[in-house]
Amino acid sequence: MNPIWLEETIRRCLEEDIGYGDLTTESIVPSDRQALGRITAKESGRIAGVDVARLAFQLLDSSVEIIVDAPDGTDVNPGDGVLRLKGPASAVLSGERVALNFLQRLSGIASATALAVKAVAPYGTRIVDTRKTTPGLRPLEKYAVRVGGGLNHRMGLDDAVLIKDNHIAVAGSITEAVRRVRERVGHMVKIEVETESLDQVDEALAAGVDIIMLDNMDLQTMREAVTRINKRALVEASGNMRLERLPEVAATGVDIISMGWLTHSAPALDLSLKLQVV
Amino acid sequence: MNPIWLEETIRRCLEEDIGYGDLTTESIVPSDRQALGRITAKESGRIAGVDVARLAFQLLDSSVEIIVDAPDGTDVNPGDGVLRLKGPASAVLSGERVALNFLQRLSGIASATALAVKAVAPYGTRIVDTRKTTPGLRPLEKYAVRVGGGLNHRMGLDDAVLIKDNHIAVAGSITEAVRRVRERVGHMVKIEVETESLDQVDEALAAGVDIIMLDNMDLQTMREAVTRINKRALVEASGNMRLERLPEVAATGVDIISMGWLTHSAPALDLSLKLQVV
Amino acid sequence: MNPIWLEETIRRCLEEDIGYGDLTTESIVPSDRQALGRITAKESGRIAGVDVARLAFQLLDSSVEIIVDAPDGTDVNPGDGVLRLKGPASAVLSGERVALNFLQRLSGIASATALAVKAVAPYGTRIVDTRKTTPGLRPLEKYAVRVGGGLNHRMGLDDAVLIKDNHIAVAGSITEAVRRVRERVGHMVKIEVETESLDQVDEALAAGVDIIMLDNMDLQTMREAVTRINKRALVEASGNMRLERLPEVAATGVDIISMGWLTHSAPALDLSLKLQVV
Amino acid sequence: MNPIWLEETIRRCLEEDIGYGDLTTESIVPSDRQALGRITAKESGRIAGVDVARLAFQLLDSSVEIIVDAPDGTDVNPGDGVLRLKGPASAVLSGERVALNFLQRLSGIASATALAVKAVAPYGTRIVDTRKTTPGLRPLEKYAVRVGGGLNHRMGLDDAVLIKDNHIAVAGSITEAVRRVRERVGHMVKIEVETESLDQVDEALAAGVDIIMLDNMDLQTMREAVTRINKRALVEASGNMRLERLPEVAATGVDIISMGWLTHSAPALDLSLKLQVV
Amino acid sequence: MNPIWLEETIRRCLEEDIGYGDLTTESIVPSDRQALGRITAKESGRIAGVDVARLAFQLLDSSVEIIVDAPDGTDVNPGDGVLRLKGPASAVLSGERVALNFLQRLSGIASATALAVKAVAPYGTRIVDTRKTTPGLRPLEKYAVRVGGGLNHRMGLDDAVLIKDNHIAVAGSITEAVRRVRERVGHMVKIEVETESLDQVDEALAAGVDIIMLDNMDLQTMREAVTRINKRALVEASGNMRLERLPEVAATGVDIISMGWLTHSAPALDLSLKLQVV
Amino acid sequence: MNPIWLEETIRRCLEEDIGYGDLTTESIVPSDRQALGRITAKESGRIAGVDVARLAFQLLDSSVEIIVDAPDGTDVNPGDGVLRLKGPASAVLSGERVALNFLQRLSGIASATALAVKAVAPYGTRIVDTRKTTPGLRPLEKYAVRVGGGLNHRMGLDDAVLIKDNHIAVAGSITEAVRRVRERVGHMVKIEVETESLDQVDEALAAGVDIIMLDNMDLQTMREAVTRINKRALVEASGNMRLERLPEVAATGVDIISMGWLTHSAPALDLSLKLQVV
Repeated sequence: MNPIWLEETIRRCLEEDIGYGDLTTESIVPSDRQALGRITAKESGRIAGVDVARLAFQLLDSSVEIIVDAPDGTDVNPGDGVLRLKGPASAVLSGERVALNFLQRLSGIASATALAVKAVAPYGTRIVDTRKTTPGLRPLEKYAVRVGGGLNHRMGLDDAVLIKDNHIAVAGSITEAVRRVRERVGHMVKIEVETESLDQVDEALAAGVDIIMLDNMDLQTMREAVTRINKRALVEASGNMRLERLPEVAATGVDIISMGWLTHSAPALDLSLKLQVV
Repeated sequence: MNPIWLEETIRRCLEEDIGYGDLTTESIVPSDRQALGRITAKESGRIAGVDVARLAFQLLDSSVEIIVDAPDGTDVNPGDGVLRLKGPASAVLSGERVALNFLQRLSGIASATALAVKAVAPYGTRIVDTRKTTPGLRPLEKYAVRVGGGLNHRMGLDDAVLIKDNHIAVAGSITEAVRRVRERVGHMVKIEVETESLDQVDEALAAGVDIIMLDNMDLQTMREAVTRINKRALVEASGNMRLERLPEVAATGVDIISMGWLTHSAPALDLSLKLQVV
Repeated sequence: MNPIWLEETIRRCLEEDIGYGDLTTESIVPSDRQALGRITAKESGRIAGVDVARLAFQLLDSSVEIIVDAPDGTDVNPGDGVLRLKGPASAVLSGERVALNFLQRLSGIASATALAVKAVAPYGTRIVDTRKTTPGLRPLEKYAVRVGGGLNHRMGLDDAVLIKDNHIAVAGSITEAVRRVRERVGHMVKIEVETESLDQVDEALAAGVDIIMLDNMDLQTMREAVTRINKRALVEASGNMRLERLPEVAATGVDIISMGWLTHSAPALDLSLKLQVV
Repeated sequence: MNPIWLEETIRRCLEEDIGYGDLTTESIVPSDRQALGRITAKESGRIAGVDVARLAFQLLDSSVEIIVDAPDGTDVNPGDGVLRLKGPASAVLSGERVALNFLQRLSGIASATALAVKAVAPYGTRIVDTRKTTPGLRPLEKYAVRVGGGLNHRMGLDDAVLIKDNHIAVAGSITEAVRRVRERVGHMVKIEVETESLDQVDEALAAGVDIIMLDNMDLQTMREAVTRINKRALVEASGNMRLERLPEVAATGVDIISMGWLTHSAPALDLSLKLQVV
Repeated sequence: MNPIWLEETIRRCLEEDIGYGDLTTESIVPSDRQALGRITAKESGRIAGVDVARLAFQLLDSSVEIIVDAPDGTDVNPGDGVLRLKGPASAVLSGERVALNFLQRLSGIASATALAVKAVAPYGTRIVDTRKTTPGLRPLEKYAVRVGGGLNHRMGLDDAVLIKDNHIAVAGSITEAVRRVRERVGHMVKIEVETESLDQVDEALAAGVDIIMLDNMDLQTMREAVTRINKRALVEASGNMRLERLPEVAATGVDIISMGWLTHSAPALDLSLKLQVV
Repeated sequence: MNPIWLEETIRRCLEEDIGYGDLTTESIVPSDRQALGRITAKESGRIAGVDVARLAFQLLDSSVEIIVDAPDGTDVNPGDGVLRLKGPASAVLSGERVALNFLQRLSGIASATALAVKAVAPYGTRIVDTRKTTPGLRPLEKYAVRVGGGLNHRMGLDDAVLIKDNHIAVAGSITEAVRRVRERVGHMVKIEVETESLDQVDEALAAGVDIIMLDNMDLQTMREAVTRINKRALVEASGNMRLERLPEVAATGVDIISMGWLTHSAPALDLSLKLQVV
C-alpha cells in the first residue's frame, strides 16, 4: 500500500464527513474527555482495513492509541474483537463513521473473496478481481481482495494490455491487434486477449499472447479451449462469475477466474464500535 | 448536485484508472477512428447517474456526443437502452469502465431504494439513507437515494445534530445534551436524539427535540413510542433495516425508516456498453 | 472546527506568502537561532483564532512552542498579552504575517459580534451571521461569530433551505415553493422564507415553515409581523442591520437578527508581535 | 492576473458555498428556466472584480452571458449598473452569493484606495498596500489596490527584501544585515530597510539600500529623514496610516505611504443583484 | 497519454511561472493585441511534446490557434519550423517559457533516444528507459523515449517486479525472492531479476523469471550469459550505458539495453519562438 | 526554501513512483526488517539536495534516521560519503529512486554552476540562472544554482520586469515600454531591458532602467556597451552561454552572465545508494 496515497485519501474522506465541523460532538464533548472503544464483529467474515481505520482516528488526533486484536486477514465470528482504541472522546466520535465505512466495506470484499477462494480450492484455480471497483478506492479494494486470498488482475489501463472485442474490431484481427501492441509496449508488459470463440482462442494462441481470456463461454467450450491451449498461455475464465458457479468453472481446468462481483456487489461486513467514556 | 465537485471527482477517478495511459487503446486505435456506443440494461432496476457517465466520456474528449434514452429515475428492463454515444473510439474505450462503474453503482442504490419505497408505500412512511456511504462518493450516493424515491438523512456531521448514546453518556442525560447543543447551534439546525428505551423517548420529548430515533427497538416498543410521541416530534426507526422487515416496521406508525443497507450493501445494477467502431 | 480543513487552509495561505522562500529571513537568520515572541493587543476587543495562529507557526516548524494567555473568547485591552511563543527565529519571522492576518481578522469579527450581542442583550434577541463571508474562510469566520457570542445562520446552500424572492417568483407563490422543497429535502432540513410584506408573512405561516425572515421591513411592520406569527415560527429580521439600529429592531420582538456586516465589513483587531532573538 | 490561479480559486470558493448542492434552488427552479439579472451599486465607490463575478457564474454554467456596464476602475453612484447577466436561473441563483462576496470586497478595497490616492494627490505621493491581506486572496486584493490607483508593495516574502527590526537584531546592525542579504539575493531584487530613528536612516543610507521605510515616526522626524536621504533612496512612510493622516504625512515629502488598512479593514461596497425570471 | 494528468500538470507549471501575474506583459500589452508566432529548431534533433506546448498556450487563452509543422517524431534541422501559433499576444508571451521548457526537454530526450536506437539498429536490440526520470514528469519523459524509438521499462514500482540485490539479500536467495513475489502478485505482472554473476543468472533462469538483467557486467560475461539463457528469458543489459558503448554491448546478443542517461542527462534541444505582433 | 511547498512536491513525486504500491518490496521485505544505507559519490562534483533526499525517505516512514556527511555545498570526489541512513528496509527501498533522482539532478546543477563560477572568478562576474528550468521544480533548481555559488535571476514572471524584443515591438519603443511598466508596478520591482544593439542600449540607459541585458552580442559590442553604460545600470550578458565562452565574456566587463544551460542541460551527478539489510 502506498502510504502517501492512503493518508491523502483518508483526509479527503474525513473532510467529506466533517465539513464545517461535528456539530453534535463539538457541542457536547469537552476537549479533555477521554474514551475507550472497541470494534467488534457482528457477523462472520474476514477482516481487512484495520490500518485504514487506525489512520482515520489518528489523522483527527495523533494521540489516539490503537491495539489491533484482529489484524488484516483474520477470520472473525460474531462478538470477536477487531481493535481497541483509547484517546480523546471527541476524535473517536468524529472519526467513527469514516473508520467503520472503510473497515466494513474492505472486510466485506475480503470476506467475499475468501469464500470464492475456498470454493475453488480443490482445483488450484486462482481467483482474481477486475477493474469494476468503486471509483476512488481501487487501491484499497484490490488490497482487500489480496487479504481475502485472491490475486489482482491489472490495476488500471496502464500496467498491462487487455485486448477486447472492440479493440479487435478496430484492428481487424487479433493478430493485427497484438502486432500493434508489440510496437508500442515494452518488455515488462503482459498481453491478454479476450476471446469469444474457439477460433479466436486459436488465433490468440498463434499470436503468442501471455493470457487468453474466455469470455462468457459455456463449460464445454471452456474445456475445449483449455485442451487446445495446453499450457502455452494462461487461461482466464470471465463473465458474470458468481459464487455458486465457481466449482464447475474451475473444474474445466482454467487457471484463473476473474470476478467483478467481489468489488461491485459484495455486501459490507457488519461491525460495531462501542465506546466507554471515562 | 454541485457541478464543481462532480467534475473534480470524475477527473480524479479517470486519473485513477488511466494512470500513465491506456496501453491497449493507445496501441491499437487510431486517433481519428469514430465509434457509436449504446449502454443497455441487463437486469431490471432504476437508472441513476446518467450525467456522471456522460461527463466521464466528455472529460476525456469534449467532442463525444450523448443521447439519453433513460434519464435518471427511469425504470428499465433487460435490454432497454440507457444512453447512446458517438465520438472518438479511443475516448469511448478509455472512459468506458469509469462511466459504467459509476452508473452501475448509482443505479444499484436507486433500484434498492425504489424497492424499499414501494414496500412502505401503503403506510406513507418515508425511506431515508444514513452516513454509511462509500467514502468519497457520498454526494452521488445520496443523490441516487433521492432518484430511488427516498430522502436524505443529514449529509454529514455539520448540517444537523444527532445525539447518540455516547453523547448522552458524556453529557449525563438527554436533557443536558440537548441543552449544550442549543448553546452552540443556530436556528437553522434540527436536533435528533437516538433513544433505546421508552424512558429515553419521554426524556427526548420533554427536551423538545425535532426528531426521535428509535434505535433497534422491537415492534411493540416502537408502537408504544409512536403513541407516546403523538406527533410532537418526528419518529425515525433505525437499526439493521432490511427490505423484508420494512412493512411491519412501517405499520408501527413511525414517520421515517433509515437504512444503511441502501448505500453500503446494495448490489450494482448490471449494465453493458456495446460499441460499433465506424 | 474541522482539523483536516484547517491544516490544509493554513498550509495554502503560508504557501501564498512564502512562495519561493523568505528572502530576508533566509539571508540573515542562522537556522539555529532561537526567538521568544509575544503577541499583544493594541486595542480593546475579543480574541478569536489563537489556534490558527499557533498552527501557522507550527506547520513551518513543529518545534515552536506556544503558551496561550488569552484563549479564544477572552476580552482584552491594549497591552494585554494574547500568546507567547518560543522557537526557531526563522520560523517565527516567516510565519508572523500569516498568523497575524488570521488572528486580527477573526478577532475583528468576534469583537464586532460581541458588540452586537451586547446591544440586544436586554431583549433576548439572538445575533446570527449570513453567507456574506470572505470566500475561502467561511468556516473560520463563522467560528469567530460564535466566539463573539453570536450563532450561525446556515453554513452554505446545502444545509438548510432559504426561499428568497426570486425562488418565489419562479414557483409562483410561497405555498408552491414550500411544496416543491418538501418533495426534495429530508426531515433534517429546516425551511425559512424571506418575506417582504405582511401578506407574505401570512402565506409563509400558513405553509408551516420553520423560520420567517422579515426582509428590510420598517419597525412598525416588523412588530405587526411578530404579532401575527405569534411564536408559530421563528422570526428573523434582516437587511442592512448595523450596530446602531439593533436595539430598536430587537425591541420589535423578533427572535433573531442576521448581520452581514459582521463578516464583510468588521475592521481587523489591531495586534502586534514583538520578538526577542536569543 | 494569473488565469490559472483565478479559476482554481473561484472553483474552491464555489465549492465552499454549494457543498452537497443548493437545496433551495434545486428544489424549486426547473433546469430550463432562464433569468435576466442586473448588479447595481447601492453606494458610491469604485468597481473592482467584475471578471471574478463573471467567472463565478460561468464556472457553474458556461452558457451564462455577461454584459459589463461598469468595467473595473469605474466610479459608480447609487443605482448605477455594474453588470447584466442572462442565463439559466439555477446557475444565477446558486452563484449569486459567491459572485457578490468577491465583487463587494474587491470594490471596497478599490474604493478605499481611491480615497487615499485622492487625499495625497496634491503631493505626488504614491499609495501602496502591505502584506496584511486576507489569507488566500492576496492576488485579488492587490489587484483591487491597483484598480483603486495605488501600487503594490512586495507580493510576498519571496519577491523583495524588507529588513525589519528583528532581522537587524539578529544581524547585529543594518550594515551587517544588508551584507548578508547581498550574498544571497540576485540582481533582480530590491532591498528595503525598516528604520525607527534617524541614526538608522543614516546607516541604511550608507548601506546603499533601495528603499528606506520610516516606521511609526512623527512628522518632524519624517521631514528630517527626507532631507537627509535627499533622493538617494526612496522613502516610505508606514505605521497605522489612516485616511485622515495622509495629507500631513504626504506633506513631509515621503515618496510612498503604505497602508495595511486598505486590505484588512476597508468595508465592503454595497451592491445588489436583482433578478427577473423569464 | 492521460489527458486528465496532462492538463493538471501543465496548469501547475503555468502557475509556477506566472504566480501573481506577468508583470511585464500585463503592463505593456493591450488585451486585444494579436500575435503570430513560430517555433523553429536551432539544432538537429527529433521533436517531442508539441501537444504539451499547444496546451500551455491554450490553457492560458482558449482562442490561441496552433498549426503543427513538425508533429512528434519528426526529425528536424536548424531552421525547420515546428509549430505556428496565432492568438492574443499576451497569452503567447506569458505562455512562451513554459511551452518551450517542456518542448525543449522532451525533444532533447527523444533526440538522445533516436541516437541510441540508431546505434544498435544493426543488432535488433531494443533501447529502453529506466525510472531515473525527472520527478513529476515521468509520463511525459517516458513518452518522449517512445517518440525517440525506444520502449519503456516499467513505469513505476507498481506495474512490474524488479528484484534487485538488496531484495535478494533480504530473501536470502533469488529462488526465495521469486517465490515470495509469486505469492503476492497476479498473473498480469512480469518478473525481472537483476544479476551480477553467471551463478545468479543460472539461479534466475531456474526460477523461471521473465527477464534477466545483467548489471554492470563486462562484455565477455554478457556473451556467456546470453548463451546460457538461450532465449528462455529476455536479457537486459544495464549499468552506465552511454551512446559510445552501445554497439559493443548490443553485439553481445542481449535483447534489451536500458539507459538512465536518456532521461537524467540528455541535453535540451535548442528551439526558439519568434513572434510578430500584429 | 519553503517547507510547505517542498513537502507537497516530494509527496507528489513519491506518489508518482509508488502508485498502487511497491510490488517487489511489499512481496519480499518483512515490515520489521531494518537496513543501513549509504549514499556515495561516483564522480566529482558539488552536493545539493540532501534535505530533499532525507524528506523522501522520512515521508514514507518517519522513523528513518539520517546522518549527513556532505551537507549541501560540499565538494565531493568519487567514493566520498554523502549521507547515511538507518530505518525500515521497506521504506528505504521504496524511497531510494525518488531520493536519488532529486539528489543527482540538483547536485548536477550545483556542480555545473560551481564550474561556471570558477571560470569567471578572476573577473568578479556573477553567474545567474534563467527561467529555463524543469517545469514543476524551479524552486529546487534555483536553490541548486545558489548552492553552486551562482545567484538567481527572477523566479517567475511576477517578481521582476524583463522587457524583451516582443514587448518593445508592442510598445513601439523601449521608452514607451518602460513608461507603461512604471504605471503598473510598484517601487519594489526592478526593471530590466533586453537589448540587441548599441542604440537600444542607449535608449534603455536614457529610460533609467535598473539592468540592461546584452542579448547575443559579440564581444566587441559588449565591450562598447559596458563602456557606454559606465555603471549607470547593471549589465547582463545573455544568449547561449556555455562554459568555454565564459572567460572571454566576463573579460568584457559585464556584471552578470545568465546561463540557461545550468538548468536545462547540466548532466546529473552520479551517486549510488548501497544498502546493508540487518
